[in-house]
Amino acid sequence: MKLALDAMGGDNAPEEIVKGAIDAVKKYPCEIVLVGNEIKITEILRDEPDWKDFPLTIKHADEVIEMNEHPADAVRNKKNSSIVVATQLVKSGECDAVLSAGSTGAAVAAAQLILKRIHGIGRPAIATPIPTPDGVTLLLDSGANVDSKPEHLVQSGIMGALYAEHVLSKKNPRVGLLNIGEEETKGNEQAKETYQIFKNMTTINFTGNAEGRDIPNGKFDVIVCDGFVGNVVLKFGEGLAHTIFKLIKEAIEEGGVPVKLAALMLAPTLQNLAKRLDASEYGGAPLLGVNGYCIISHGSADAKSICSAIKLANDYVNNNVLEHIKTALEQEDFFKQ
Amino acid sequence: MKLALDAMGGDNAPEEIVKGAIDAVKKYPCEIVLVGNEIKITEILRDEPDWKDFPLTIKHADEVIEMNEHPADAVRNKKNSSIVVATQLVKSGECDAVLSAGSTGAAVAAAQLILKRIHGIGRPAIATPIPTPDGVTLLLDSGANVDSKPEHLVQSGIMGALYAEHVLSKKNPRVGLLNIGEEETKGNEQAKETYQIFKNMTTINFTGNAEGRDIPNGKFDVIVCDGFVGNVVLKFGEGLAHTIFKLIKEAIEEGGVPVKLAALMLAPTLQNLAKRLDASEYGGAPLLGVNGYCIISHGSADAKSICSAIKLANDYVNNNVLEHIKTALEQEDFFKQ
Repeated sequence: MKLALDAMGGDNAPEEIVKGAIDAVKKYPCEIVLVGNEIKITEILRDEPDWKDFPLTIKHADEVIEMNEHPADAVRNKKNSSIVVATQLVKSGECDAVLSAGSTGAAVAAAQLILKRIHGIGRPAIATPIPTPDGVTLLLDSGANVDSKPEHLVQSGIMGALYAEHVLSKKNPRVGLLNIGEEETKGNEQAKETYQIFKNMTTINFTGNAEGRDIPNGKFDVIVCDGFVGNVVLKFGEGLAHTIFKLIKEAIEEGGVPVKLAALMLAPTLQNLAKRLDASEYGGAPLLGVNGYCIISHGSADAKSICSAIKLANDYVNNNVLEHIKTALEQEDFFKQ
Repeated sequence: MKLALDAMGGDNAPEEIVKGAIDAVKKYPCEIVLVGNEIKITEILRDEPDWKDFPLTIKHADEVIEMNEHPADAVRNKKNSSIVVATQLVKSGECDAVLSAGSTGAAVAAAQLILKRIHGIGRPAIATPIPTPDGVTLLLDSGANVDSKPEHLVQSGIMGALYAEHVLSKKNPRVGLLNIGEEETKGNEQAKETYQIFKNMTTINFTGNAEGRDIPNGKFDVIVCDGFVGNVVLKFGEGLAHTIFKLIKEAIEEGGVPVKLAALMLAPTLQNLAKRLDASEYGGAPLLGVNGYCIISHGSADAKSICSAIKLANDYVNNNVLEHIKTALEQEDFFKQ
C-alpha cells in the first residue's frame, strides 16, 4: 500500500504526523509520500538519520487549508494545498490511499471533488469506530453530510456493513438505525422512511432501530444516522469521557491519604481504560462512498494515532473494500430503482 | 404545592413511587395525591402505619398506559388511566402539578391534550438537567418532539432560560444552539435558520453554537436542540457512563491483589461519582410549554429519584415559572410577528 499522507493537517502537524509515518514504515508493509512543506518535513526527518533507508518520500505542497476556511471553496482555490495534492496522488494512481488529520470538511470536499463519488452513492459517510466493552461499533455518518435523505442512510448501512465485514472481520454484521425508540413507528420522518427501506432489504442484516444507549454497548456492529446526529454524538462522547475522568481525578485529589494511595495503585488501570475509550486511539475513520481510499484522522492526532491510522489504511486497501462496495451496489435491487 | 403523582408509571411502580412520596411529604412542604390502583397503593402504605398523619391521599384510577402503546391514542382511549386522571387533577385546579415516571410519550400527550399548550408555544419541550463538573446544563428538547421548526427551537431557548434562571438560580443564563461547529454557517437547515433568529434576539443571552463536547463541560447553562438529537444524546450519555463504570469494574477484577485493595478504598469515591453522573438522580425533567406544571421522571426511577423529583416539582411551582414564561412570551417581539 502506498499512502499519500497530508503532513500539514492537524493540531500537531507536521511533527507528530511525520513521526507517525516513520513508526509506520518500520512496522507495516507500506510506502508513504509525505505531502507538505518540504523544508519543515526534512527538518523533522533529520531526527531519524537513516530515514532514507525506509520507503518514505516527500512531495512538496506549499499551502495549507486552515480549520476556519470554507471547505469546498478552499479546495477549489488552494490547488497546491497539502490535502489537495495528497488527494490528487490517489486520483492519478500514484498512491493507493490518502490520510489527513486536518480539516475534516476539507478532506471530505477534496475527496468528493477530486476522487468523485462511487456510482450509485448519493453522499459519502465517515464511519467512526466507537469503543464498546468487546470491540467497536461503527457509527456512520459521523459528520460528512447533514440533512441526508433516507436513501443516503441506506447506502451508508450497506457500505458500513461491507467495511465491518472486510476490515473489522465481523461476520454478517448487525446493522441498526439510530432512532429514539425500538418500534418501527418511532422517530422523525427521515428515520421512519429509512426503516421502511431497510426492513425490506435482504442483502444486509438489518436488526432494527438502535437507541442512543446502544451505541457504546456493542449490541450492533454498524449504527447508521444522519451526519448531524453522528457528529454531535461523537463529540459528546469525547466530552463526556473527558469529564468523567476529570471528575475521578478531582475526587481523588479531594480524598484523604488512603484514597490517594489507592488511586496511585489504580492509575495504570484507569489510564489504560481512558486510552481505550479515546476514539483517537483507533487512528482514523474511513470516508466511505468516494471512489478512492480516504481516511480521516482526529485533529488532535499524535504520532501513535497516525501510526494506527496508517495500519487502518493498509487493512482498508488490502481488503479491497472499494471493490466490494461497487459489486454490492450493482447487485442491490434498491439501487436499480 | 399539591402534587398529582402517577403511582402506576415506571419500571418500579407502584412500590418505589409510593415510598418516594412518603419520603417527600416528610421532607418537603407538599401535599400528594397518589393516583392509581387503590388496593395496591394501600397495601404499600401499610408499611408506614402512620401514613394518614401525612398529607397523602389516594385517587383511584384502574387503568395504566403501557410503554408500547401509542401515546395519543392511549390517552384518548384510557380515560381512567393513572396518567390521564393525574393530569386532569391539574386541569381542574385540584392539584398544582403532575409527576409521572411512566411512558414519556403518554405523559407528554396527556399534558398536551388536557392542559393544552401555552399561548404562543408551538411545541412543548422536555428540559433535562445534564451533570457538569460544577452543576448542570439544561438540554432541551430531550425527546418531546421531533422534526421541530426553527421557531420551536427558539421557543425552547426562551423557556429553558427562564427555567434556568428561576429554578436553577442561574443569572443571565448562557443559551447555546446544539450544532456541529461553532461558526454560524455550520449545520443543517434547521440549525442555520434557528441561529439567525437567536442572534437577533435581545431578551435572552444567546452565546452561539454549542458542540457535542459542550454538553457535559458546563460552558452553557441551556443547550437547545431538536427532540430527536436530544433523546439520542441523553440515552447515549446514560449508556456511555454505564459502559465506562462497567469497564472500570472489569479492569479492577482482572487486576492483581494490590489493584483490588486499592479499588476497595476508592469504591465510595467512584460510587458517589457514578451517582452524581446518573441523570435519574436529578429526579425529573420539566415539560416546558404546556399550560400547567408537568414533571417527567426516568422510567427506572426509585424512591429516592421520585423524592428528588417531588422537590423539583415544589421548586418549579413555587417559583411561578409558568407565569414567567407567559409574561416573556407577551414581551418578546419574535412572537408578535
